[in-house]
Amino acid sequence: MAFSTHLEFIVKQVDGAIACTVMGFDGIPIETHQAPALADTANDLELANAWVEYANVLSTLKTAAETLKTGAVSEISVNTDKVLTLIRMVSPEFFIVLGLKPDGNYGKGRYVMRITAPKVKAEL
Amino acid sequence: MAFSTHLEFIVKQVDGAIACTVMGFDGIPIETHQAPALADTANDLELANAWVEYANVLSTLKTAAETLKTGAVSEISVNTDKVLTLIRMVSPEFFIVLGLKPDGNYGKGRYVMRITAPKVKAEL
Repeated sequence: MAFSTHLEFIVKQVDGAIACTVMGFDGIPIETHQAPALADTANDLELANAWVEYANVLSTLKTAAETLKTGAVSEISVNTDKVLTLIRMVSPEFFIVLGLKPDGNYGKGRYVMRITAPKVKAEL
Repeated sequence: MAFSTHLEFIVKQVDGAIACTVMGFDGIPIETHQAPALADTANDLELANAWVEYANVLSTLKTAAETLKTGAVSEISVNTDKVLTLIRMVSPEFFIVLGLKPDGNYGKGRYVMRITAPKVKAEL
């Protein structure tokens, strides 16, 4: 269960990354890596609180998607004026979530989350 | 309430766009433009059904976000292996939703939705 290397990799690779967490659909964070320079931003935004809410909504969406022809949800993004949030499914129980500054590299974030998710899964 | 021009603009501008709809948070579609060449894809995926579910979940997320420090949600994306879905808030009651093929131009989709949302709002 060595998630920290992967979380740190994501945060370092993506410009504007604030923090990255492995989280359960029950809203319980397993491990987090925060960009040291943006600790104040993470605290001001209360990212951890937002992610618990997102986990809750996500859980509903995952269940709803099971009955849809569009297939299983692999990636979700929830963006506000203050923070971009990328969520990537890892397993039926866990996902990784990345918070980015609004001017952060969203495309690179999606890419790095996609290639890192299987590595996190391998640690579960 | 001339939405069709804007919806058609979005679908034409974005490579891989399947369909675009103005929809209420109650899940009721107001108007849709479908890419003529991809009508079968839209039907096979039952996009309309998926979007009603998404509207429902979105409505929960919008309410939850009101109590969060991260601010109001402006954009959401829900992606599966079969279809990418971009959602952009238009007003407290309405949003626009765009379905894209998995290899569609996601970045252009985000951009075109962002610049078109205020035009759709002006028609409300």
